[in-house]
Amino acid sequence: MLRTHTCGELRITDVNKQVTLTGWVQRLRDKGSVLWIDLRDRYGITQLIFEEGKTDPALLTSSRDLGREYVILVEGTVVERPAKNDKIPTGDIEIKASKITVLNAAKLPPFTIEDETDGGDELRMKYRYLDLRRNIVREKLQLRHKMAQQTRTYLDAQSFIEVETPVLIKSTPEGARDFVVPSRVHGGEFYALPQSPQTFKQLLMVSGFDRYYQIVKCFRDEDLRADRQPEFTQIDCEMSFITQEDILNTFEGLVRHLFKNVKGIDLPSVPRMFYDDAMKLYGSDKPDTRFDMKFVEITELTKGKSFPVFESAELVVGICAKGCAEYTRKQIDELTEYVKRPQIGAKGLVYVQYKSDGSLKSSVDKFYSADDLKVWADKVGAQPGDLILLMAGETDVTRKQLNELRLLVGERLGLRDKNTFSALWVIDFPLLEWNDEAKRYHAMHHPFTSPKPEDMALLDTNPGKVRANAYDMVINGTEVGGGSIRIHDAATQKLMFSHLGFSEEEARKQFGFLMEAFEYGAPPHGGIAFGFDRLCSIFGGADSIRDFIAFPKNNAGKDVMIDSPSTISQEQLNELSLSIKL
Amino acid sequence: MLRTHTCGELRITDVNKQVTLTGWVQRLRDKGSVLWIDLRDRYGITQLIFEEGKTDPALLTSSRDLGREYVILVEGTVVERPAKNDKIPTGDIEIKASKITVLNAAKLPPFTIEDETDGGDELRMKYRYLDLRRNIVREKLQLRHKMAQQTRTYLDAQSFIEVETPVLIKSTPEGARDFVVPSRVHGGEFYALPQSPQTFKQLLMVSGFDRYYQIVKCFRDEDLRADRQPEFTQIDCEMSFITQEDILNTFEGLVRHLFKNVKGIDLPSVPRMFYDDAMKLYGSDKPDTRFDMKFVEITELTKGKSFPVFESAELVVGICAKGCAEYTRKQIDELTEYVKRPQIGAKGLVYVQYKSDGSLKSSVDKFYSADDLKVWADKVGAQPGDLILLMAGETDVTRKQLNELRLLVGERLGLRDKNTFSALWVIDFPLLEWNDEAKRYHAMHHPFTSPKPEDMALLDTNPGKVRANAYDMVINGTEVGGGSIRIHDAATQKLMFSHLGFSEEEARKQFGFLMEAFEYGAPPHGGIAFGFDRLCSIFGGADSIRDFIAFPKNNAGKDVMIDSPSTISQEQLNELSLSIKL
Repeated sequence: MLRTHTCGELRITDVNKQVTLTGWVQRLRDKGSVLWIDLRDRYGITQLIFEEGKTDPALLTSSRDLGREYVILVEGTVVERPAKNDKIPTGDIEIKASKITVLNAAKLPPFTIEDETDGGDELRMKYRYLDLRRNIVREKLQLRHKMAQQTRTYLDAQSFIEVETPVLIKSTPEGARDFVVPSRVHGGEFYALPQSPQTFKQLLMVSGFDRYYQIVKCFRDEDLRADRQPEFTQIDCEMSFITQEDILNTFEGLVRHLFKNVKGIDLPSVPRMFYDDAMKLYGSDKPDTRFDMKFVEITELTKGKSFPVFESAELVVGICAKGCAEYTRKQIDELTEYVKRPQIGAKGLVYVQYKSDGSLKSSVDKFYSADDLKVWADKVGAQPGDLILLMAGETDVTRKQLNELRLLVGERLGLRDKNTFSALWVIDFPLLEWNDEAKRYHAMHHPFTSPKPEDMALLDTNPGKVRANAYDMVINGTEVGGGSIRIHDAATQKLMFSHLGFSEEEARKQFGFLMEAFEYGAPPHGGIAFGFDRLCSIFGGADSIRDFIAFPKNNAGKDVMIDSPSTISQEQLNELSLSIKL
Repeated sequence: MLRTHTCGELRITDVNKQVTLTGWVQRLRDKGSVLWIDLRDRYGITQLIFEEGKTDPALLTSSRDLGREYVILVEGTVVERPAKNDKIPTGDIEIKASKITVLNAAKLPPFTIEDETDGGDELRMKYRYLDLRRNIVREKLQLRHKMAQQTRTYLDAQSFIEVETPVLIKSTPEGARDFVVPSRVHGGEFYALPQSPQTFKQLLMVSGFDRYYQIVKCFRDEDLRADRQPEFTQIDCEMSFITQEDILNTFEGLVRHLFKNVKGIDLPSVPRMFYDDAMKLYGSDKPDTRFDMKFVEITELTKGKSFPVFESAELVVGICAKGCAEYTRKQIDELTEYVKRPQIGAKGLVYVQYKSDGSLKSSVDKFYSADDLKVWADKVGAQPGDLILLMAGETDVTRKQLNELRLLVGERLGLRDKNTFSALWVIDFPLLEWNDEAKRYHAMHHPFTSPKPEDMALLDTNPGKVRANAYDMVINGTEVGGGSIRIHDAATQKLMFSHLGFSEEEARKQFGFLMEAFEYGAPPHGGIAFGFDRLCSIFGGADSIRDFIAFPKNNAGKDVMIDSPSTISQEQLNELSLSIKL
């Protein structure tokens, strides 16, 4: 190495050593008779000192010309600092420089390379390679590395085998659109990129691999919503000879291992909630359980008082915002406006203020007496000082709307601290969900998910009620992982395809290889896939690789390395056209 | 788990335990009064026993009906075997079965699931998921997992950070053709798949990551030659503040760590050879050094004797095949035919037999005396009993042809044992190579490779002679890795692009972001990429993921999951056409 030590390494015990350091000039402080330079690398910062009368005058002069972010090599002696800096591990020493070599000059960076930078988002993204020099940004990628390391450590210890599966595969229909990849060498042929290695891992179970995992890139040609990227990374896992209980325990173990070994946090054992209860108590299959504020249904208590909205409502349901009784009219109006936004679509919001003096005031005082309101308050568990927020309408819709309100109120009350962690298993998901456009049921998870045996009979009579051996792990209101026990016999799989509206021909064409494999001795198996990006994000690491490695943006704000050009060139078009035999 | 133990776990100390095992029926042996079943899972084989008079008669009867590869769950008691089987770790015990549950029936497999199977290649590939049940096949994937584990262990310990880089990127021109990926959501735009993360990792060095690695999939839309696949896996690495010496030592360390920890072999320290010497001594930049048989040039010794082939030859060069003096005419003719094959293209082969009695016989006795031949023999170090094989012609061509002959002779002499390992660094590669088609020089490695400073002056006068700080690691004649010290200043990089025939405009358009980044303080850096597939192959592991996970073949011999369909469908064509705005 050009260096003998890194910039984070030297201590008081190294005093008098001759050393060579390399790094970037972080900062110069020139007090006339003394010049200090902070030298930075990935490992830390070390102070260099140049003193009039002690340092060679030529060296002192040339060192004054060093610019910020110059790459230099310094030779010198470790000396004890007169004034220690206990904020950095190298703060007891400094380097009496005897020679400086400029390894590379640098233009003045467009923003300061500090934890608190003066660069705005746009500038920082344009010069992402400089932004990544900042500790707090680089550390997010290092944390992601540690997450992957610890994931492998845990799974390796549990006899899982990491198997790479192919990226250029045959197109198979799953939830979203496949990216297709025409081969110009094999004219007229094309590959698809995997949305998940689902069928590969199931075949590995048929092959007897017993425990498989892979940290793997997956792809979807979809609109880029907030938490959807065209490429994303999964921790993809599958196990044989297990029940749902084994999967839940094994992967709760993984998540707790990560909290312990990456963040030093002892996560309590992860509670389980039925999907139906999650919808009833939180209006969401991914409830944020960092705070309570459960839904309370008061439908029956509101009837017969001629308030048309509640009279006609299938469901009247509320939450209790602790200590919010004194919300101003303006604050409550804001909440109302929030739920009336088109994305949420509620018609309105009813509130009851349970004042500290015990009096009750509501937006429906015309219809309900103080006694009526007191009954509601008791039902929702409100105390003097609390605010009750009520919504009404069709059950499923109202729950989803109240979920949005609950999250907003929780946010305002500071109950959604990103350094607090609450994990939850949501289990017993429905097997099927109705698709209004296609006018038929779709697999909620995917077509390989096994129905609960006791619900099989409902498949013909009430398909929407059939529960699956399917589960999601939710942390802080984010679905970080999901999976299921799979169907492992060809007969049930055939039945499922038929319920999903596949003709026998279609099923055979698309999944015939899987059904055939099942006939040669498939073990009972199941698995889970964690969204590694989301998990990293919750841990404070780099969520999207594309955003993090969004190397330089051009003037149009496009990533010059990862964004596609705005149009295809004529030459490229010609090649593609040839390849797909137009 | 459905099981209490795996099929590889139980020992004599477990006798009398009540256990539950799961797995596949490997084999039934029915001796009338006793039935044995071998139960197999990934972890091993355990023998089950059923005895007339001791086993429930109904269980005995039904167990006789179990077919090969049935998936079963067995409950029973561990008992000591009367006759031990010391070939398997569970050979001291067997399970007295009290209950069998069939978890899944199985059709008779098309070949036996044994190390020595009765299935041919075609059948085994068609049912690859069954072939993977065979230990020797599955273990190749397990070895690959271990290779990846140990690679990460070594690099993590050396402070390398694994950073994921994007897969859907902007197309940049490298050696081969990019796969392009049209986005149907973002009509008219497309991505490319990376041939390597080269520019990403160089920018990570500019960002101060100091030590980067990634086990990463790369892609090339190329004809599938023997060792080229459209997707392949690399161990991609880059380091800052280093010299070539540091890279060679660090990655020699990686390879020795892998040999030690994966195969239990102490690989000696890896010798280094200049590229020029490798070409001179072996006619190849990836010599197989498991055996010696170096080239010896005897050009001058052959002149003036009127043998036209040697008279006109720029080079006469030979190898000495130890102990082969008694090769028959037929054997020598075979060698001659081999080098005359169009792929090699030699005009012929001259031989000298140095008989055990000390006499010398050659195919050019008409032109050369026994004394002449003795001089040659001394020069090539031949002893009585050896065979000298000589080729002549233009230097570079002749060396390449003799390389092929050397490998064949080495093979025939059993000197290329796959369980013997010889590693070599080939260093000081030429910076540029002449491209006859394009009538200009191309970068031999890639355009970011730094020339040796002392050769910079040759760039204008004799570009082909400029050496690069570039190196390959070769094991057993296979190039398993290669890399270089990179250019890290914008001025040299610009100069290089101009020598490679890029106009300033082209260079700016394609690599402007990199040159701009270099202006903001790029550290000296360099790296290497190992072909993980080739490395695994040398270790006896799974080389090509596509071949290994080539799940079921259809009747046309295509992999139904990874091969592309033979033509694009009209629907897919329409979508593509729309997306590229025809």
